[in-house]
Amino acid sequence: MSLEGYRGRLLELLRSAGASVGDELVVSTASGDVEGTLMPRYQLSDQLHLVLKLKNGYNVGMALGRISGVRVKGKGREPSFSPPPRPRATAGLPKVLILGTGGTIASRVDYRTGGVKAALSSEELYHLVPELSGIADISTEATMNIYSENMTAEHWSALARRAGDALKEGFDGIVVTHGTDTMHYTSAALSFALDSPPVPVVLVGSQRSSDRPSSDSATNLIGAVTFAARAPVSGVFVVMHAGPGDDELAIHAGVRVRKLHTSRRDAFRSVNGAPAGTMKDGEMRLDQSLPPRRSGAAGLSVIPGFDGRASLLKVYPGFHSSLIGDLVRGGCRGIVLEGTGLGHAPSSSYADIADAAKSGVFVGMSSQCMNGSVRMTVYDTGRDLAKLGVVPLGDMLSEVALVKLMWLLGQGYDSPKVADMMTKNLRGELRERRPL
Amino acid sequence: MSLEGYRGRLLELLRSAGASVGDELVVSTASGDVEGTLMPRYQLSDQLHLVLKLKNGYNVGMALGRISGVRVKGKGREPSFSPPPRPRATAGLPKVLILGTGGTIASRVDYRTGGVKAALSSEELYHLVPELSGIADISTEATMNIYSENMTAEHWSALARRAGDALKEGFDGIVVTHGTDTMHYTSAALSFALDSPPVPVVLVGSQRSSDRPSSDSATNLIGAVTFAARAPVSGVFVVMHAGPGDDELAIHAGVRVRKLHTSRRDAFRSVNGAPAGTMKDGEMRLDQSLPPRRSGAAGLSVIPGFDGRASLLKVYPGFHSSLIGDLVRGGCRGIVLEGTGLGHAPSSSYADIADAAKSGVFVGMSSQCMNGSVRMTVYDTGRDLAKLGVVPLGDMLSEVALVKLMWLLGQGYDSPKVADMMTKNLRGELRERRPL
Repeated sequence: MSLEGYRGRLLELLRSAGASVGDELVVSTASGDVEGTLMPRYQLSDQLHLVLKLKNGYNVGMALGRISGVRVKGKGREPSFSPPPRPRATAGLPKVLILGTGGTIASRVDYRTGGVKAALSSEELYHLVPELSGIADISTEATMNIYSENMTAEHWSALARRAGDALKEGFDGIVVTHGTDTMHYTSAALSFALDSPPVPVVLVGSQRSSDRPSSDSATNLIGAVTFAARAPVSGVFVVMHAGPGDDELAIHAGVRVRKLHTSRRDAFRSVNGAPAGTMKDGEMRLDQSLPPRRSGAAGLSVIPGFDGRASLLKVYPGFHSSLIGDLVRGGCRGIVLEGTGLGHAPSSSYADIADAAKSGVFVGMSSQCMNGSVRMTVYDTGRDLAKLGVVPLGDMLSEVALVKLMWLLGQGYDSPKVADMMTKNLRGELRERRPL
Repeated sequence: MSLEGYRGRLLELLRSAGASVGDELVVSTASGDVEGTLMPRYQLSDQLHLVLKLKNGYNVGMALGRISGVRVKGKGREPSFSPPPRPRATAGLPKVLILGTGGTIASRVDYRTGGVKAALSSEELYHLVPELSGIADISTEATMNIYSENMTAEHWSALARRAGDALKEGFDGIVVTHGTDTMHYTSAALSFALDSPPVPVVLVGSQRSSDRPSSDSATNLIGAVTFAARAPVSGVFVVMHAGPGDDELAIHAGVRVRKLHTSRRDAFRSVNGAPAGTMKDGEMRLDQSLPPRRSGAAGLSVIPGFDGRASLLKVYPGFHSSLIGDLVRGGCRGIVLEGTGLGHAPSSSYADIADAAKSGVFVGMSSQCMNGSVRMTVYDTGRDLAKLGVVPLGDMLSEVALVKLMWLLGQGYDSPKVADMMTKNLRGELRERRPL
C-alpha cells in the first residue's frame, strides 16, 4: 500500500494526511464529508480529482479545488484472501506481458480488494487463474483503468506506445485486457499503430464478470495468453468465445471484428469473412496466410499518434446533413459516412457533402449493411457522390475506417495523402473488390 | 401517351408545346438547349422541375423558372415489345394491389421504354412475369419513383395513406415494390402507421436488376404476390431471398429486419430472432403466433403522419457529442443514440446529453451491437445515463427506434408520452427483457 501513481497537488494532499491506497478516508468538501476507500491511480488518470470507492460500491470523484481536508479514518487492510500458490518454475516458458486497461475482465478483484491494480499483479492472476502459470512467464502492468466507452485517440496512442516498447523488450506475446464495448475499435487502432509486430498482440475481454457463474473471464484469459505465448503467427488479434460453449475460442483479425451482441459470450464476430482461426482443447487451427512469428523486433514499426478530429455519421432517411457542416465548423478534419446499401446518401445531403469535401475535409463512404462492399459505380447516385469528392471505402468496416482515418490524420498527412491511403490496404482492412 | 400526372405551370407549358410523355423534346434554358425524352410524373414528384431522360440514360431536371421554351422534336414511339399475352381469367383470384415506389426491382422496364410508369401497368407485369397472372388479379399503381435513400417521413406518410385506403377498398393483399437501401426503414414505418391490417402488406425489392442474369426481381415479386394473395396471416412484412439460391424466400416481420449485405440476394435478415416464415416451392412455413388474415377492414387503424425532426447518432470512441446540441438547435425533437455494448456513451458526452434531455428533447439508447438488448442497469455508467434522462430501448433495432420516434412525434405527443410509448411494445418491435 502506497501512493504510487499519484502526482502533484493530489499527492501532496494525501501524503500530508498520512494516507495510503486502500485506506478509509474522510474527505471534507464544500458540500459535506465523504467517506470511502482511497482508490489506486493509473498512468492516464487525471490528477485533478480524488476518487473514493463508497461503501455501496460506487466510485465518487471530488475536484481537488473543492476539498478542504482529508483525514484517515482507518488504515487499509491487506487483501483478505490467502497468499497465492507459488508459481511453478517459469524458466523456459514464453514471456507474456498482460497490459490492463480496465473493463469487465478485471472486475472481480475490483470488488474484492477495493482496488483494481491488484487484480493485475502476476501473483493474483496466478491465484485467480492458476492455469496461467503453466502456460507462460507472465508480467502484468495496468496502463489505465477505464470503461472502454471512454477510450479516446489519446488512449490508443499511449497503449500503442507501451505495446511497442514491450515488443522491443522481447516479450513473446502481449495480451491487452480491455472492456468489450469498444475493444474492436482498439484492436483496429493497434493494428495500424503496430506495423509488423514480430509476435501476437492479443486483445481480450469478458462479457460476464468473473463473479458470475457464466463468466468467460478465465477461459478467455487462458486462451489469449496461450495464443500470445505459443501461436506460430504474428499480428494484432481479438480472442473471445467462438460460441455459447466454453470449449472453443475464435481468433479474429484486429481489423475484421465487431461486437455483434450486447451480452452473449460469443458477441465478437469476424465480419465479411471467416475468423483468422479457432482454438479448441488447446489446439489451434489458423489461417495459413497469417504472417509467421519472428524472433527479435527487426521489421517492427511503432506508429502511434491518433487525431480525434474525425467522425462517423450514420445515414438514415431524412438524414440531417447539416451535421456535416457542424462537424467541419467544430474543427473536424475527416468524416466517415455510414451510408445505405452500396454506399448512398440522400440527394438532399449532396450540398453539405460537397461543401465539406471542397473545404479539404476527407469524406469517405462505408455501408451500414456491414457485409459486402461499397460500390459507388453501380447507380448514378453513387457516381454523383464520387463526383462530389466522396471516397468509397470498399469492404472496410465503418468502425475500422474511422480508426484508420484518425490514425492517418495523426500522422499529419494532407488531404490527398489521407484519401490515397484510405483506399489502400495496409493491414488487411480493405480487400480487393470481387466481381458482384 | 399523355401528360397524366403533370400539374400547374408545368402542365400548361407542356400542353402549349403539344408535348406528350415519351416525346423527344428540345428544352431551351439560360444555359443552352437540352434534348431528351419527356419522363412520366408521379403522385409525389415535385412540379417545379421538368425532367428529361438524356440519350446517355441519365435524367436531368431543369427548374421551371429557367426554361425559356419547349419544342417537340419527335413524337414518342410506342413501346417496342410485342403485345402482352392476354391474362388468364382472373375471376375468383385474390385481388392484389402492387404499389410502386421505384428502386432496382422496376429498373429493366425503365431502360426499355424510357419511362418507369409503364413498368407497373398490369399488362406489362404479366408480360415480364407471366406467372403472376395465375396467382392473383393484379392492379398496379406508381405512387412515386425514387431511389430509396431519398425516402423521407413525408413519403412514408403518403405511402401509408395509400396503403390504408387500399386495405379499406378490400384488396386481399398489398405489395410495395421498393429500393432495397431503406426498405427496412419503410417496412417499420408502415408497421407503425397501419395498425392491425386485415391482410398482408408486403415490401419487396431486388438486389440485382432484371436485366442481369442473376436477377432476383421475378422470384421476389412472385413470392411477394403469392404471400400477399394467399398467406393466412396479416401484418407488414418484407419478402426477399432466404439464401443464395432461388428456391427459398424468407418472410421477415417489418420491424425485425435489416439489410445486412450490400449486394447479396439474401441481404435482408431478421435480426434478434428468426424470420416470421419461409416459402419454398410455394409452401409457406409461418410463425404460428402471427395474427390471422381477416375479411373486411374492421379493426384497421391508419395512422400516418411522420415527423422528420428526429435523428440517429452512432456513438464511437471520442464521440463528438456537440452534435447533440447542434441537432437540438436545428429543431430536432428526438434523438436515438446508437451506443456501444449494453447501451453506453462516453462520459465526456454526458453534459450534452443532459442538456438535450432537460430541454425536452427525447433521447433514447439503442445498441450498435444490433443483437441483444440494451441494459442500462448493469454498469454504473448505464445508470448514470438513465439518471440524465436517457431512455433505454431494449432490443429495438436502432433503425426501427428512429422510425417509431418520427411516428410518435408525428402524432403530436408530448415528451413524457413519447418516452412512455417508446418503451412499450406496439408492433413486435420491443420484446420482453429476458434474464441474461
